[in-house]
Parts: sequence; C-alpha cells; structure tokens
Amino acid sequence: MASAQPRFGSSSVDYTSRPFQGRMLGTGLRSHPCAGGTAGSVTYLYSESKLVEVERGAAMRVDVSLVPGEVAAKDVQNAVVVVIDVLRASSTITTALANSCEEVIPAESIEEAITIASGYARLDYVLGGERRGLAVDGFDLGNSPYEYSESKVAGKKVILATTNGTLAVKRYGGAKEIVIGCFLNADAVLRSLAAWRDHDVILLCAGQDERFCIEDALCAGLYASGLAQTPGAALSDSARAAAAMHERCKDSIEDALMGSDHGVYLASVGFGDDVRYCARQSVLDVVPKVYDRRVIRKARLGPEES
Amino acid sequence: MASAQPRFGSSSVDYTSRPFQGRMLGTGLRSHPCAGGTAGSVTYLYSESKLVEVERGAAMRVDVSLVPGEVAAKDVQNAVVVVIDVLRASSTITTALANSCEEVIPAESIEEAITIASGYARLDYVLGGERRGLAVDGFDLGNSPYEYSESKVAGKKVILATTNGTLAVKRYGGAKEIVIGCFLNADAVLRSLAAWRDHDVILLCAGQDERFCIEDALCAGLYASGLAQTPGAALSDSARAAAAMHERCKDSIEDALMGSDHGVYLASVGFGDDVRYCARQSVLDVVPKVYDRRVIRKARLGPEES
Repeated sequence: MASAQPRFGSSSVDYTSRPFQGRMLGTGLRSHPCAGGTAGSVTYLYSESKLVEVERGAAMRVDVSLVPGEVAAKDVQNAVVVVIDVLRASSTITTALANSCEEVIPAESIEEAITIASGYARLDYVLGGERRGLAVDGFDLGNSPYEYSESKVAGKKVILATTNGTLAVKRYGGAKEIVIGCFLNADAVLRSLAAWRDHDVILLCAGQDERFCIEDALCAGLYASGLAQTPGAALSDSARAAAAMHERCKDSIEDALMGSDHGVYLASVGFGDDVRYCARQSVLDVVPKVYDRRVIRKARLGPEES
Repeated sequence: MASAQPRFGSSSVDYTSRPFQGRMLGTGLRSHPCAGGTAGSVTYLYSESKLVEVERGAAMRVDVSLVPGEVAAKDVQNAVVVVIDVLRASSTITTALANSCEEVIPAESIEEAITIASGYARLDYVLGGERRGLAVDGFDLGNSPYEYSESKVAGKKVILATTNGTLAVKRYGGAKEIVIGCFLNADAVLRSLAAWRDHDVILLCAGQDERFCIEDALCAGLYASGLAQTPGAALSDSARAAAAMHERCKDSIEDALMGSDHGVYLASVGFGDDVRYCARQSVLDVVPKVYDRRVIRKARLGPEES
C-alpha cells in the first residue's frame, strides 16, 4: 500500500543540495525518539518523474544494512563503509593489526587462502582459518582472536579465510573508504568517522548465511548512537532501530553475545572465551582499513590519501 | 570467518525431534538477556554431512524477517506467518474487516485491482488504492484506514491495491496459515498465535522497496515479546533484536512511528492522523486471515479448518 517513499539507500533518493525543480509534496521533521540524536527537516518533491527527498542541514547520513545485501553496492559510492562481523572476523582482524601484523589479506575460502599464500615466502606470512570449527591441515592458526598474538603475527602478513567479511569487501569496493569495526575498536572507529563529515556512513552487518545476526546489529547500534551525537547527523530507520536495540542491551553486551545464535554455537564448541573477548568495548586503538583488497592499520584518523 | 552455524530459517536446520545419528559438536544454553523469555538447551551435531541443531523443549520457535525476502519461502511450510505492514496496509485491512466488510482482496497494483473488480457487480465492492499518495480515477477510497468506515465497507468486498503485503502473501503461500498483524489488533493476533503451539511462528516485516522499516520491526518486537512468555518459546536472533527494540521504544510508539522514514513522509503529505491511528495498540479484536488469496476475518482463534 505504501507509495514510493524515499529513504536512505534507495535509488530514488538524491541527497545533493542543488536546487530542485519540481512539485513540492510536503515537508516533515525527522526525529529519533528512541535513539537520541538530532532532528532535521526534510522536504519531498516530485522532479523528473521521481520522488526526491531533500534533507536540509544533514551533514552526515547514517544508514545500517541489517541483513547482507540490503544496501545496494551502487548506493555506497559517496559513503564510508564500516564492515561489522563481531563473531569473529572483525575482532580477529583488529586484534592481529593491534599485535603488529603487517597486513591482513582476507580470502573467501580455505582454498583461496592457500592460493594467495603460494605467492609469498613461507616465513613472511601466517595462514589462518577453520573448516567447520576445526583446524585445517597446513594452517598456522584458526579463527580465534586469541591465537593472533604478537609473538605469532608481528611483522607478518596474515592470510585469513573468512567468508562473510570478504564478500562484503568485494561487494562494496566502490565506497570512499572501507574500515573494519567491532566492539573492541569502537572508540577508534568513531573518532575516525567523525572526520568524514559531509559523507554518508553505512554500517554493514556481515550477518551469517545471508541472515541477520544480533551481535553485528548491536555493534552497528553502538556506532549509530555515537554518530547520532554529531551535529547534523541524520539516522535512517535501520540506524535508529540498531541504536534502540543497543540502548536496550548496552549494559549486558556480553550476555547478549553469549545468548546470540552464533555465540551459543561458539560456546558449545569451546569458544566461549572468544565470545566474551569480542564483547569488550574500545580496548584496541586500531582502525583496520581496506586498501587494494588487503586490510592495513589506518595511519591517521579521517580522510587520507590512498 | 564464521562456520556454517545453524539458525532459525536456515535450510540446514532441522527442527524435527527424531533421534539423530551424528558426531556431537557441543551443547549450549540459549537465553534472551535483552528480550525476556525462556531459555532452552540446544545441541549441535553433524549428520549426513550437514550441521544440525536440535533444540530441546522448544514448543514454539519465533523468527522475524526484518527485511523482505530474508526468510526463504521454503522455510515457512510448518509455520504460521504474520504479515506486518503497519503503515498502512495491515492497519487498513484490519480496520476494514472490523467495520464488517465481507472480505479484502489484495491486488499488487492499481491495474490488477481494476481487473479483479471487473469480475464483480459494481454495488458489491469498493475499490481502494492510491498512486503516489494521490487519488486514482474511478477508485472509491485511498489507502487511509480512516476511509474504511462501516458506512463505506459493511457487507462489501474491498479490492485493495497494496504492493508490499500482496507480495508477501504470494511469496509465503505455502505456510500453515497467514494472518495480518499490526498494532491495532496485537492482542487478538497474540491470542490466536498462542493456540499454535508446536508450530513455528514467523513474523514478516513487509518493509518498503525491499528495505527495513522500523514501524514493522517494532510491531514484530511487540509480538515477539508477547510470544516469549509462552512456555517453551525460543526466539531467533532477529526476534530477540525486534523485542529489544520494542522494549526500548514501547512507551513512545506513536513518536517512533511519527519519526520513522515512512511516518515522516506520510505526515508531510497530510496523513499524520493515519500514522497516529496506526500506533494505537490492541483496539480492534480482529484477526485477518488469508484464505485463497483473499483476506477474511478469522472466525475463531487457533488452528481451524480452511
């Protein structure tokens, strides 16, 4: 029944501030009753046969893709993208970079990781990954962040088999910048994002098997709540929803992760400590940044060359 | 990085209670720290090359599709499905049936509605729908629930052009039963669902243009919170997330709807009263039920023939 109403991420939304020619439909005030944050005024027009939303005074639009693929790749071109895979890819990559690995090279599969490794000298890399929760022959490490200690990874390339995050990095390669976020590095990522005013921020929940994961949404909600404090920030429905979810659970994040579908599974196969570790907030001052399909430690916060 | 871990709605999950042959991986306790509800124990095994989750003591599994298409049609076959399109299809259909219309025939488009109408005598039906928020030539009513008063619809068929809800009804035609839910009839739907123990309940957020809508998720969260009180209910990640979101916003549902992307739009084009009306909770004692692609008023709660 709903008519073609514009929203963040929709192809019918044009966020540029140039003047519009068109029939004005109405003007509304956007507020965030459950999520905090600022309110902006929004005007709807028809222009060149499409419905156009003109949001005034919004210097940073914050959107969340709650389910893999919800945001189309074409909609990230002026955006900074944060890929969130709390259990455990984002947390492991962040930990490895904090422990001074040179870079992380994500691979979509065990096989692709082996192919990538064949291009390097054996002493220059460590190979990480699991097959259905079990160690893989010839691999140095599994998927647990605890394994990526300084003594194991410092100065080396980490070639990491990790399906969800790798797919997201490939899908959204056209973004202004892609960084990796989790609870561990929340403050660092938020400080980095604050420097990207006048850009959209899209928080991508990596999910699992194309479905929603609560741990990724809670982390996106933490970020959305933080960004809502930026003057002129405007949150989409999904950003407000994630923020509300996080507000409700913020005093029991560890319990929420231990009670999540994937957390229950990981604990059942002996990785309960991993889940508790991944629930720790802002303990690592590292922003992993995707550069040429590798993940490196961002040298300084905000926009930077390369 | 995550391995193939089972979850509600995944094709690798087998919820039958027959004994499994397979390698046991582990056992976990599932709880709902932010959403209330009961906890169940869950066991993971490999059987016939796939990972299988055996949840014990869960008499009703509750899942939420937060984004259109997130739950595959094949996964609803043993499920009762609630289609939720708060602004405004679900609310309008519920209102029309409460005002004694004979049945609602949903159509995917204005054109399909006209085709359906051509099969009936002019006095037997009213034709409802809008094109981009504007009245349609030859149509009796728009999309506002306020228009579906007893004097307009009593004893008649309502042929209603409504894209999102109609697509959901077609996509999930294989379900045990499909009912229409919104805030207006929440108590009635919950009482009806309570009679479906030993079935899965899937709450489908209709969304907008294939994207998430907060008003549908909040309503799904209200339902999920209610169902969580059922002994033996087990909530998926998305059901817990929707419940947490609703818990956070439950004292300001009208504000949340007025602040939603679609609510802001509707208010800007003069339908603010519709949004406020759709936020009213449990004021109509009607459960609309899909039967043979029409929507009728459910005669009694719980499982019934046809």
